[in-house]
Formats: sequence, C-alpha cells, structure tokens
Amino acid sequence: MPYAHRRAQLRATMAEAGVTHLLVSSPANRFYLTGFELHDSQCAESSGVLLIRHDGPDLLLTDARFRETALELLAAEQVVIYRRRTELATILHDAGVRNLWIEEDYLSVREYHALAQKLTLHAAPPLVEQLRQIKGPEEMDRLRAACALNHNVFAALPQLLTVGIHEAELAWELERRFREAGAEALSFPTIVGFGPNSAKAHAIPGTTPLCPEMPVLVDMGCRLAGYCSDQTRSLWFGRSPSSEFARALDLVQEAQARAIAILGPGVPAAEPDRVVREFFARHGVAEHFTHSLGHGVGLETHEAPRLATHEETLLAPGMVVTVEPGLYFPWGGVRWEYMVHITEDGHEVL
Amino acid sequence: MPYAHRRAQLRATMAEAGVTHLLVSSPANRFYLTGFELHDSQCAESSGVLLIRHDGPDLLLTDARFRETALELLAAEQVVIYRRRTELATILHDAGVRNLWIEEDYLSVREYHALAQKLTLHAAPPLVEQLRQIKGPEEMDRLRAACALNHNVFAALPQLLTVGIHEAELAWELERRFREAGAEALSFPTIVGFGPNSAKAHAIPGTTPLCPEMPVLVDMGCRLAGYCSDQTRSLWFGRSPSSEFARALDLVQEAQARAIAILGPGVPAAEPDRVVREFFARHGVAEHFTHSLGHGVGLETHEAPRLATHEETLLAPGMVVTVEPGLYFPWGGVRWEYMVHITEDGHEVL
Repeated sequence: MPYAHRRAQLRATMAEAGVTHLLVSSPANRFYLTGFELHDSQCAESSGVLLIRHDGPDLLLTDARFRETALELLAAEQVVIYRRRTELATILHDAGVRNLWIEEDYLSVREYHALAQKLTLHAAPPLVEQLRQIKGPEEMDRLRAACALNHNVFAALPQLLTVGIHEAELAWELERRFREAGAEALSFPTIVGFGPNSAKAHAIPGTTPLCPEMPVLVDMGCRLAGYCSDQTRSLWFGRSPSSEFARALDLVQEAQARAIAILGPGVPAAEPDRVVREFFARHGVAEHFTHSLGHGVGLETHEAPRLATHEETLLAPGMVVTVEPGLYFPWGGVRWEYMVHITEDGHEVL
Repeated sequence: MPYAHRRAQLRATMAEAGVTHLLVSSPANRFYLTGFELHDSQCAESSGVLLIRHDGPDLLLTDARFRETALELLAAEQVVIYRRRTELATILHDAGVRNLWIEEDYLSVREYHALAQKLTLHAAPPLVEQLRQIKGPEEMDRLRAACALNHNVFAALPQLLTVGIHEAELAWELERRFREAGAEALSFPTIVGFGPNSAKAHAIPGTTPLCPEMPVLVDMGCRLAGYCSDQTRSLWFGRSPSSEFARALDLVQEAQARAIAILGPGVPAAEPDRVVREFFARHGVAEHFTHSLGHGVGLETHEAPRLATHEETLLAPGMVVTVEPGLYFPWGGVRWEYMVHITEDGHEVL
C-alpha cells in the first residue's frame, strides 16, 4: 500500500513550505494519500476530509456511513466520526490544531466560514497535486492499461459507424465496451459529434443520425483500476472527405506531431501550446483553436500540469499529459489527442 | 421551455429576500433556471455561472467551449464568454454589479477571494433550492418515468441473483438494463452488498461472490430525461432467511410504513424521522439506524428537503422525498426505500 509512503513524502514538502497542518478536502488528493473514496457522492456532499499533521498521526474525519471503509485503511485512533459536518471546527480545535492550511479550490465558502470561527486559516500551496503529477511505476502500469483499453475500443469504432446510428447510441455502444472489458466507469462523458456537432468542444451526444459524407468526432476515456484515459479521434464517414476536413485534419495532426516532438524533461509546459498556436497562426487558422493544448491525466481526467499559455511548470519524468490540438468551424471540427508520458530522456506516446 | 418562467419566479422571491444580484454557481440550479449543463466536468471545474439581476437581463458567463450550447438557450446579449475564470470579478463589476449574493455551498474559497476584491459579497438564502423542492407537472412526469424504470429493473433482480455472481457484475447488469432502457446515466453509483457488505451504507460493489443463505442489499437509481430515481431493496438469497434478517426486515418495513403514513402537507420534515427513531428505540435497535430517514429527489439524487432530525421545512404538495429506514449489524444490513410524492391531501408512493 503506497499511502503511508505518500503521506511521508507530503510531510517532507509540507516542512519545506512551512505548512504544519493540512486539511485535504479534494477527493482525489484524499484518495491518493489514503485509498479512501475517490469520489464524493455529490460535489457539495463530502465523504470526509483528511488532516495531515507535521508531528502526529494523520486523521481521517468522516461520517458513520463510511466507518467500516475508513477502518480498513487507517488505524482506529486515526478515524474520527462526526455526526454533522459543522462539528469539524471543534473537532480540529480539540485535536490541538490552531493554524490550518486549506485547499482553496476544494473547500466551500460555507465550510471556510465555519472553520474560521475556531482556527486560523491559510491557503495551502498545491503540494498534493505536485506529488500526483509524477506517476510511480504502479500508476504508470494502470495508466498504460487504461490507455490500451481506449485503443482497443477505438479499434472497433469503424465497424460501429453505420448509416442512421444516433450520436447517443454510438456513445452507449462505446461505453458498454469499456465497461464489459473491466473499466469501472468512463473517465468523463463520451463526446460524440456528427456533422456540425463535431465543432462543439463539449457536445452532449444527441439524436443526430449519422449520414454519409459527414465528419465524426469521438473524445472518450475510461477509468480502470482508478486511473483515467483520454483520447480523441476525428474521421470522415463516407467516401471523400471534404477539402476543408482534409486540410483541418492535416493541420491538426502536424501541429500535434510538432508539439509532441519537443516534449521532454525541463521543457516549460507552456511551450508545446505556443508551438501549436504559432503553427496554426502561420496557416491562418489560429482563431479556430479555442482551447488549451492539453492537461495532465491520472486519478482525475484533468489534473496538473496543463499544457497552456499561462502554465509555469517544467515538464519532468513521470508526468503524463494529453496533447490535443483542434480546429473548429461552422461545418464541424477536428481534434486529435494522444496521451504522452514524459520519460528520463524524452517522451513516450501511450 | 419553463426556464424564463422559473427565473421570473426566482426574481419574485429575490425581491422578498432583498437580494438584488444572485450568482448561481450550483450546476443543478444553473440547469433548472436555463437548461445549461446539468453537470460540471469535475467538481472544481465549473462550466459557467449565471447572474440573476433584479432589474435587467440575466447573464450566463461561460468559456468558449460552451458558446454554441449557451446561444441555443439564451439571447446573444445574455451570453458572456470569459477566457479565464479569474476575469469574473471584473466582468461582473463592469456589468454594474456591486453587491453580489453567492451560493456558499457551491463557491470555492479561491473564487470567493477573487470576487471579494471587486464586489461586496453576501450569503444567498437557498432560493433556487426552495423553488426546486416543489415539482411541477412536467417534472413529476419525469420523476414518475425514472421511478417506473427503477421498478422494472428491480423486477429483474431475482433472476439475476445466481450463485457465484460478484457484486460488481450484478451492479453492471443492473446498470446495463437502465441504460438500454433509455436512462442517460445512473443517478448515483449502484450499491450492491452481499453478506456483511450489506451493512455498509455506501459499499462499493466488489468481487464478493453470492453464496446461498446470505443477505443482499441493492440501492440504485437512474437519471431519465434529467430526473433521478432512488430505491433500495433487501432480500435473502437462499431458502431460509436468518431470524436476525427476518426481524430486521420486519422492523424496517414497519418503520417505513409508519413514516409514510404521516406524510402530507404541513407535516414537519423532521417528524417522520422522529417517528422511525422512536419506533426503533422501542424495539431496542435505535443505534443500528445510522443515517437520516430520507431526502428530496429531483435533478439531484440528494436535494431539499431532508427527512432528518434538524430539518425545519414543512412538507408541501409537489415535494418528492425518499423514505429509507435501515438497520445495520455485523452480519449485514437491511434497508427499504420508496420515493414518495407529497400531494394536496396526503401522499402517493411512486
């Protein structure tokens, strides 16, 4: 079980950052550090929080529904059951906490005000996210397996593309294959866009039927043993791709190849995004690329680092990022996405 | 489209509450009022926010990925595209907002601090949640349909219970039936517990195989046309239920019947929970009932009102709540759950 080791690593980075007590409320961070509940049942409905202390046993604070699960992961003295979430401030204060570092993206304003009544709160730096960026060997095995399943399901796509199938029907066929192959869930709702819908970066699959001579975009991923995959393909359904589609696909694939070519340790995460934007600008299509180039993938589909204009991270061995340039027009859109592992001496496309 | 009407209703309750500008960041509230994106892609990754103004057109603020979707729902002058979420404070200030009421459960501390730099923030009362409690006729049609599908899938359960099937396999079989019957998703991850696992109120289905003479608990629901269902059944797999199981099932079902019997307009939402606790206490099992009696259901699986000790709402026609007493022991657990619609003159079990 890697959890105690990860908490020890975290304690070391906390010491460097001057953080004595960290309240972990992000479900993915909580899971990474303990194995406890990767998801909350609803976003505003937390299954529990984790207190990491510089000088004492860590505590998992949860409610009675999760008692058994918590006790399978931590020692009895580390599990604290609250009846109502409003008791948290008092419980932490009674445990000797005075200064508490919180995850600002994962704490609601209501809980913040409640905690602030008894404790001095500070914004925590993204210490757990930084650890999560670098995948260990076991995590890489799981990411490879999730990615391999994605490739397998994509291999079946051409035979599923039949005249008249609806976007939502295709999405379900793909999902069924993921699940029957062992995925515990999709990593995000599958995007299936036919025709002009392929230009909606986050299209919800609907009742649009597939007809000959139209573009098709599928962006999909699964969660396998906790870890996410994320890949996109664009194809033309019919005999002859339109010249607009063919040109967009060429540009997108060349942009992707140029971005991937420069990936490696020490490269600024903003750089491949810049390369793609510059390439698209030279070809007069810069304004049709409406999102960032990519993002980290792991326990969450979207995690650090982003491949984006304002990202300041340097790429490092063990990071896994998507590279997914796209071009979107009124007639439809094209996106092509790989997951790429940063290695000691360069990169590896998964 | 009911959305403009709902926003007008909301504006009336805002006026009563003295709220001039409401920032809607809860995805379900945002969807209820506009039809825009029922979910965010991750909890800390908002698809957009809605500004409801007492005196002017409402604004939907989102990023470029959702432009097309937003323009299908609102007029062009009501859609504002931001490049980075940090621009929100400036955009709102430029739109003339000075005092802003926020949803404290659905705004992160990071966004709160960013908005507070330019605006005076106030905690909004749960005005949208209060509207959402009372389901209209079209919403009731959808809830009935979702609930009917749940009944149909439960009807197939006995034939799916075969010696050796794993919890996770059964969960997938049930999910597949929901999806193939048209559900867009589960309303929450199906809970399947065999043997002692049936006592875990939020068990993740695992590789435990079904063997003769053990209790089985299944808690499941689907989302159909946006609306959720939620039902639980407990059964004994084998020839002769243990005496502990039979007694627990009797107590749970009688407790449920007593709670449902008193449901109707004007009844405090805490009262049925109290009735169940008192009944269990008389039979010496009060400490084995470890959660609240129930919760509202609609666009979210868990919404207002709760049937719980500290709830202060009075039940009213149009509310839909679950009634789900349970008893949990080391050998396993029993829970039985119906969805109940509060009517003009009493209640109706869905």
